[in-house]
Amino acid sequence: MTTYNVAVLGATGAVGQELIGILLERGFPIKSLKALASARSAGRVLEIGGKELVVQEVTSESFAGVDLAFFMAGASVSRQFAGIAKEQGVVVVDNSSAFRMDPEVPLIVPEVNSDDLAWHKGLIANPNCSTTIAVMALAPLHAHGGLKRVVVSTYQAVSGIGAAAIDDLKQQVMQYTQGQPITATTYPSPSAPKHYQMLFNLIPQIDVFDEGGYTKEEWKMVRETQKILHDDSIQITATTVRVPVFRSHSESINVELHKELGVADARRLLEEAPGIKVYDDPGEQEYPMPLVTTDDDRVWVGRIREDFTVPSGLNLWVVGDQIRKGAALNSVQIAEELIKRNLV
Amino acid sequence: MTTYNVAVLGATGAVGQELIGILLERGFPIKSLKALASARSAGRVLEIGGKELVVQEVTSESFAGVDLAFFMAGASVSRQFAGIAKEQGVVVVDNSSAFRMDPEVPLIVPEVNSDDLAWHKGLIANPNCSTTIAVMALAPLHAHGGLKRVVVSTYQAVSGIGAAAIDDLKQQVMQYTQGQPITATTYPSPSAPKHYQMLFNLIPQIDVFDEGGYTKEEWKMVRETQKILHDDSIQITATTVRVPVFRSHSESINVELHKELGVADARRLLEEAPGIKVYDDPGEQEYPMPLVTTDDDRVWVGRIREDFTVPSGLNLWVVGDQIRKGAALNSVQIAEELIKRNLV
Repeated sequence: MTTYNVAVLGATGAVGQELIGILLERGFPIKSLKALASARSAGRVLEIGGKELVVQEVTSESFAGVDLAFFMAGASVSRQFAGIAKEQGVVVVDNSSAFRMDPEVPLIVPEVNSDDLAWHKGLIANPNCSTTIAVMALAPLHAHGGLKRVVVSTYQAVSGIGAAAIDDLKQQVMQYTQGQPITATTYPSPSAPKHYQMLFNLIPQIDVFDEGGYTKEEWKMVRETQKILHDDSIQITATTVRVPVFRSHSESINVELHKELGVADARRLLEEAPGIKVYDDPGEQEYPMPLVTTDDDRVWVGRIREDFTVPSGLNLWVVGDQIRKGAALNSVQIAEELIKRNLV
Repeated sequence: MTTYNVAVLGATGAVGQELIGILLERGFPIKSLKALASARSAGRVLEIGGKELVVQEVTSESFAGVDLAFFMAGASVSRQFAGIAKEQGVVVVDNSSAFRMDPEVPLIVPEVNSDDLAWHKGLIANPNCSTTIAVMALAPLHAHGGLKRVVVSTYQAVSGIGAAAIDDLKQQVMQYTQGQPITATTYPSPSAPKHYQMLFNLIPQIDVFDEGGYTKEEWKMVRETQKILHDDSIQITATTVRVPVFRSHSESINVELHKELGVADARRLLEEAPGIKVYDDPGEQEYPMPLVTTDDDRVWVGRIREDFTVPSGLNLWVVGDQIRKGAALNSVQIAEELIKRNLV
């Protein structure tokens, strides 16, 4: 079996650590594994899957001899190092938003559009976590009846912000139970001018505000979904909200299709789709909840109902672990698919 | 000034206690005030607004001499005592779902359809809390351009279940911080066969399941909104979700209108509407959040955006204290309006 020299940039972050764990868990064909991060984290020892990995500072020399690199840090880090890595023949799977909408870069959810890997030029983008979770449920419906319009409201977990956000919510819980004033340093994001309490609250802002009063997160859901499904005519509108949940994003998705599709057929299509778990038995109180889907690889779909207000409409409740399928797992799946197709 | 003999049934519940507080706070013209509840709570002393009130057991004799009764217990209690009270000439404001869809019973949000009070026959219904909050924001838009279709996803606070749910969430927090197993006894509702953890979780079930896989809560939002706005042609679909927030329901509302309405005009209509607070300055990170709106009488509207996917569409983020405007305050406002119109 061919094995690969693998580098993970952003190895100390929530997604980076998860990704290394998934590589080991799935027996990814690793020849060597390099954990890269900023100078600040260099020397730190990661213990993942029973192994110890010393974090190295990322520099322009880090990518010599690397076959495959996972970029799991932010967009600015990706912009800084993607060109350098590509020049040295590295195939980069980038989890940041930096190149997602670049027409030269395939944006991949392997179960949905892995054929787009064929035209990669050394860089493949991993979609936004909310997008991936939505697209997993939307793709089988789109393939059947053509999506006309999608209205989505999200309920997003704090770990989407990163490891610091998890600690901040835990601290708020401690402060609450000890009757101390609750401090806020992380929400809606560490770099935001104002910070709000997340515990027992909801924050209707994810990422920064952009065109039309929508946040960048909301626009990502629109544009990335259109790109992955190869159809700019799909009308999508989104409202994205942060909720006091540690892990797993939930989404209330209203769908209008061009062609009629009953609930029974929609359910069957979703059941047959890879990576989807239909969990929908109201009589048994079975519906996806973040605590149920956390650490699971699948995207869970429930509350499948006909929307009686339009000719061919459906309501869905979709929940998935956004650190696994929404980020780290999807990136590993992209790499596995590259190997399968001899594209690395 | 005319004063009234007032009774509050369900005086020991979360909404009942809030209602008594609001009556005192607003200087409601009370001649006498009777706190009624089940035998179990009889003799309990309520301290509200610096006054002590001894709870009496409700019986068929409780309503003699009463002018105005607020029924703040459940639907079965309302069904049991509404007829008895009406026969004795009492005007009943009922917060339960028992009579809301009865064509003989006006269903009232005072800012929206107080003219419907004119045809009351001794019983006026107070809408479901999620409905009231949505309708407050929808009514000014409907008056302008006619609502065509509404897609709503809710983020509902635990106090909607009652006082026990607040205690249960607090207990889950204590158990979490002490590293104990988390017990669940209240969610999605005390009477449900299965109970789930609410802390750090979301539960996409409010009330029991009904026709088409929708919950009763979801159907209430559809049918009550149509009744209040006198327009059964409005197409409404809802997904209702419980979130780990103590108080204030939030709603992501997507609206399609028959007539075009720009964001600036929508904002102006909402700003001019009574009982609405437009709080919408993304540049200053100003948008409604449950912790901001709690204990406030108004329904807060923010994230007002054009929905580019339909000819005349808007997205709104609407948050309101569901115990005040969603229940107790709205009931008191109904009574105030009855007095103003000499209808009691």
